[in-house]
Amino acid sequence: MQVHAYAAPAAAEPLVPTVIERRDVGPRDVLIEITHAGICHSDIHTVNGDWGPQPFPVVPGHEIVGTVTEVGAEVTTHRVGDRVGVGCMVNSCGHCANCLGGDEQYCLNGMVATYAATDRDGSTTQGGYSTHVVVDAGFVLRVPDGIDPAAAAPLLCAGITTYSPLRHWGAGPGKQVAVVGLGGLGHMGVKLAHAMGAEVTVLSQSLKKQEDGLRLGADSYFATSDPDTFSELADRFDLIVNTVSAPIDVDAYLSLLAVGGALVNVGAPAEPLSLNVFSLIGGRRSYAGSMIGGIAETQEMLDFCAEHGIGAEVEVIAADQVNEAYERVLASDVRYRFVIDTATLR
Amino acid sequence: MQVHAYAAPAAAEPLVPTVIERRDVGPRDVLIEITHAGICHSDIHTVNGDWGPQPFPVVPGHEIVGTVTEVGAEVTTHRVGDRVGVGCMVNSCGHCANCLGGDEQYCLNGMVATYAATDRDGSTTQGGYSTHVVVDAGFVLRVPDGIDPAAAAPLLCAGITTYSPLRHWGAGPGKQVAVVGLGGLGHMGVKLAHAMGAEVTVLSQSLKKQEDGLRLGADSYFATSDPDTFSELADRFDLIVNTVSAPIDVDAYLSLLAVGGALVNVGAPAEPLSLNVFSLIGGRRSYAGSMIGGIAETQEMLDFCAEHGIGAEVEVIAADQVNEAYERVLASDVRYRFVIDTATLR
Repeated sequence: MQVHAYAAPAAAEPLVPTVIERRDVGPRDVLIEITHAGICHSDIHTVNGDWGPQPFPVVPGHEIVGTVTEVGAEVTTHRVGDRVGVGCMVNSCGHCANCLGGDEQYCLNGMVATYAATDRDGSTTQGGYSTHVVVDAGFVLRVPDGIDPAAAAPLLCAGITTYSPLRHWGAGPGKQVAVVGLGGLGHMGVKLAHAMGAEVTVLSQSLKKQEDGLRLGADSYFATSDPDTFSELADRFDLIVNTVSAPIDVDAYLSLLAVGGALVNVGAPAEPLSLNVFSLIGGRRSYAGSMIGGIAETQEMLDFCAEHGIGAEVEVIAADQVNEAYERVLASDVRYRFVIDTATLR
Repeated sequence: MQVHAYAAPAAAEPLVPTVIERRDVGPRDVLIEITHAGICHSDIHTVNGDWGPQPFPVVPGHEIVGTVTEVGAEVTTHRVGDRVGVGCMVNSCGHCANCLGGDEQYCLNGMVATYAATDRDGSTTQGGYSTHVVVDAGFVLRVPDGIDPAAAAPLLCAGITTYSPLRHWGAGPGKQVAVVGLGGLGHMGVKLAHAMGAEVTVLSQSLKKQEDGLRLGADSYFATSDPDTFSELADRFDLIVNTVSAPIDVDAYLSLLAVGGALVNVGAPAEPLSLNVFSLIGGRRSYAGSMIGGIAETQEMLDFCAEHGIGAEVEVIAADQVNEAYERVLASDVRYRFVIDTATLR
């Protein structure tokens, strides 16, 4: 099946319209007509070659929402006409301890990323900047009716990436949660932590987006460029979710944690970070990391979002605006996620 | 009250016999006739000045066991004749969130260390290398009859320092626990984790103490000097308790953790450590720290040790052997803790 798509032909080159081949629908596959695809910062890192050589041409996109148009003979979980989503992974081994434990994202045999990865049949995966995609039913999520499909797309990456650590480290009533950075991930972190009942603080470089932060659900907002922030908030938080991939002063952020608190990175700088182990020992503190979430947990997150009326804040664009959108993402000029209306690809 | 003690007169000088003053027994105090005092590596760091200037002369010792000989008018928790213990702290503010939460060791107003610290009345604390000590009843532990008093002394520091992280990170049946280093702390970690029902692995520089490790309760024993160890044990452990204060390759140890696992340092090198955040993100892993334990938890640990017949492996010495013992600790020539018979001080 030949489908329209936008692809990066080579590292750091603008994306161009193209036609790609999608595989035949196998017995366990779902064919999805894509309606929306979010633009994640990691799409840009990948096509820019920041994360090493890629199998160009690359069709990015791992925040996919669409409608089921065909299912394989063995598929019982999805039906034609269902609204569904696909996130950052489209396959895993299915039999290692982590897959069996619902942590497919940490598959010991390597999960298959939604684009620029080698699928288990040897083919190269291509992402959501496209009109259609064929995905193993086990990696297709139900998108509940209550969420606008454009606002749902970023949930598949930005949503689950923040939901998973919030859940794992117990965000909820009586808990002090800080979110570092108010971008695509951070704004979801604020909404989700607030909906879970935690008291939410945004830690942002400046107070520029303060009004937004409070509107999205934050109880307070502090500028990390102000050194007083670190003395004022010392020993405060049970959980800090750091959505910023740039290097941070780990010891300074650890000093904001209460006893037993955790600083959790959901992004990572390329270079190693340094920390003083006394920052951990002095309060039974943890420095941790988290990567997206498992399939069952992603479904749980979508259901939670529908129940609480949560979607991403999005700016919907046509496919031919994607290169411009990339420039704006790099300039942090988006509140808070670009989503491609993939009808414009047809 | 004038009592006999062994003190370091100045940084890096040998300890000498001396006489010190103990305060009068206040209404909430307990007077303890010390029978045994363990020698902890941190005693040596302190008197050597490794941790900065100290209020010399310093009487070290924070692994204290003895018998109550007098109690203040308001004391209801201890009686004359009881066998009791004192660990690394002898006071805290009692009203901050951490004290109220049973984490006196993380007192936000500063817990008072058992020696070389300023007590809340302004006096300088002096430790357990002495015949008697006067301690606030809230920081005096009951030592159950089931434990030999010499073997009990090291529980007050080495025991609780390993017990607390094992409990907090859920060591128990079905859990894979590694203990890094088989010294004073490590040998307690092995005994305790084994008694909790975990499967226990020792990670030691060499296989020199393998026989001991297995006898103490380890299920397996690996040399960290062998690079194969790190590939063979990849993704294995739910919890690694690192008892070694020297710098480690954090990324290498993190790679041994299963999804959701924690590497917990109970000692810290003076210099900062570096780690790659991807080591954390790639498996929801944590790098954490832990410092002794709260008073209630220390009592729980002592009761647990009595129930399971656990004590430290000790070599009992006379007070005048303390300088020689220090040399042997520095040479790792002790299996596994020196304990001073303080009757030899009288």
